[in-house]
Amino acid sequence: MASYLITGSSRGLGLALVARLATLPRTEVGTIIATARQDNSALLTEIVNASPGRIQMLNLDVTDIASVDAAVGAAERSLPGKGLDVLINNAGVMDWSPTGLEGMDNLNDMFNINVTAAHLVSRAFLPLLRKGNKKTVVNISSTLGSIAMADGFKSMPVPAYKISKAALNMLTVQYAHQYADDGFTFLGISPGWLRTNLGGSRADLPVETGAEKVMEIIRNATPKQNGKFMNIHLPGWNEGQGAGRADQYDGKEIPW
Amino acid sequence: MASYLITGSSRGLGLALVARLATLPRTEVGTIIATARQDNSALLTEIVNASPGRIQMLNLDVTDIASVDAAVGAAERSLPGKGLDVLINNAGVMDWSPTGLEGMDNLNDMFNINVTAAHLVSRAFLPLLRKGNKKTVVNISSTLGSIAMADGFKSMPVPAYKISKAALNMLTVQYAHQYADDGFTFLGISPGWLRTNLGGSRADLPVETGAEKVMEIIRNATPKQNGKFMNIHLPGWNEGQGAGRADQYDGKEIPW
Repeated sequence: MASYLITGSSRGLGLALVARLATLPRTEVGTIIATARQDNSALLTEIVNASPGRIQMLNLDVTDIASVDAAVGAAERSLPGKGLDVLINNAGVMDWSPTGLEGMDNLNDMFNINVTAAHLVSRAFLPLLRKGNKKTVVNISSTLGSIAMADGFKSMPVPAYKISKAALNMLTVQYAHQYADDGFTFLGISPGWLRTNLGGSRADLPVETGAEKVMEIIRNATPKQNGKFMNIHLPGWNEGQGAGRADQYDGKEIPW
Repeated sequence: MASYLITGSSRGLGLALVARLATLPRTEVGTIIATARQDNSALLTEIVNASPGRIQMLNLDVTDIASVDAAVGAAERSLPGKGLDVLINNAGVMDWSPTGLEGMDNLNDMFNINVTAAHLVSRAFLPLLRKGNKKTVVNISSTLGSIAMADGFKSMPVPAYKISKAALNMLTVQYAHQYADDGFTFLGISPGWLRTNLGGSRADLPVETGAEKVMEIIRNATPKQNGKFMNIHLPGWNEGQGAGRADQYDGKEIPW
């Protein structure tokens, strides 16, 4: 019975992850702590109410150290005597810059929210994670952050997002190295291009599919995956659509 | 006769690059603009005085947009009617965090200086670079920023530096993509581990060697290298020292 804490749960993938977790058997998923900057999300409240006693909502601004520290204290009280098993650093933002780099004026903000915040949250929750069984930290990344694949994403005018996700990937690897001997699993996951506010309406997949497939990776994760950057697995997706995209979601490691 | 502008010229690799440029024939290297945050570096002044009329010193705080804009104006006046051929974004800092991620409290600063500043400077100098013949921008990076090679650098407790250089590499690729059709060459270069304040005294190479080898890459650069991450070339370096390091400086592309 593993406990989970998810950041950025008020919408998008974070919300869908909470919803997905609440459908899993209580023998597998115990306490679910859904955090958001403002814990007044109507959608999240709906999911919380639909699974009485299953989900705890917690206020957490991932960019604010005081808020992070308070959330650690609150999570500790929610898990009396037990540790946290899985932390999912999902909170993040995406820029759209129609003029590309010329209009990129938000790089520092993007770094702060998409990278530094994941560091602040991971570091603060380490003591509680040490007491957990799974000791797993997931950083929600993106193939858009793969420098090796960047050629294929030229047409996506989100340079600050891409740069921040490349940095997040290196952060994941740094954590993986430092805490490997303590039994931790740090993992980057690309959830696919999802139909959310962030991904837009023309995206590949419903957010529920992304959440299910991300959870599939997390449920199967072992220290063997420590430091890896994983793709979701949707065999034969877009089969017969040409452009060689049938293996776009191949469940394999994504090149850096 | 190409013109060069180097950031972070008061010491280390930047200083050595200015010194190296001043030794190259005037038929190849024209105006050399050496910029530094405080233009009162005794070492830089020495080099400037040793090559009368060859080097122009310019005050430039790469993290300050007003300072960057002022430097563009000053550079324009130094290159009347001509463009800038080569911009070398060399200014940068390295953290040392003996406790690794636990002590990493400077990530946003590192991003600002090592990544965002390179963006601000590159973007501001683009109009002047467009008027130049070489249209080359070099971002001084590091193999420590290679996520693919991170395993080999586990023992170096400079996590924020590593993360910032991975981000810088993605920045380089974003610029390379956006301005490829305009004939630009954006290039990341790892100068080797150099004996400077930043690299420390146990580093592999004298800074002069690093500067010479970096200049070798820049002098031979063509749009074919656009978007690449290049290693310096020191054939047979450390030959016979074991540990497979003879090809450490192989002049090839570095994996992301």
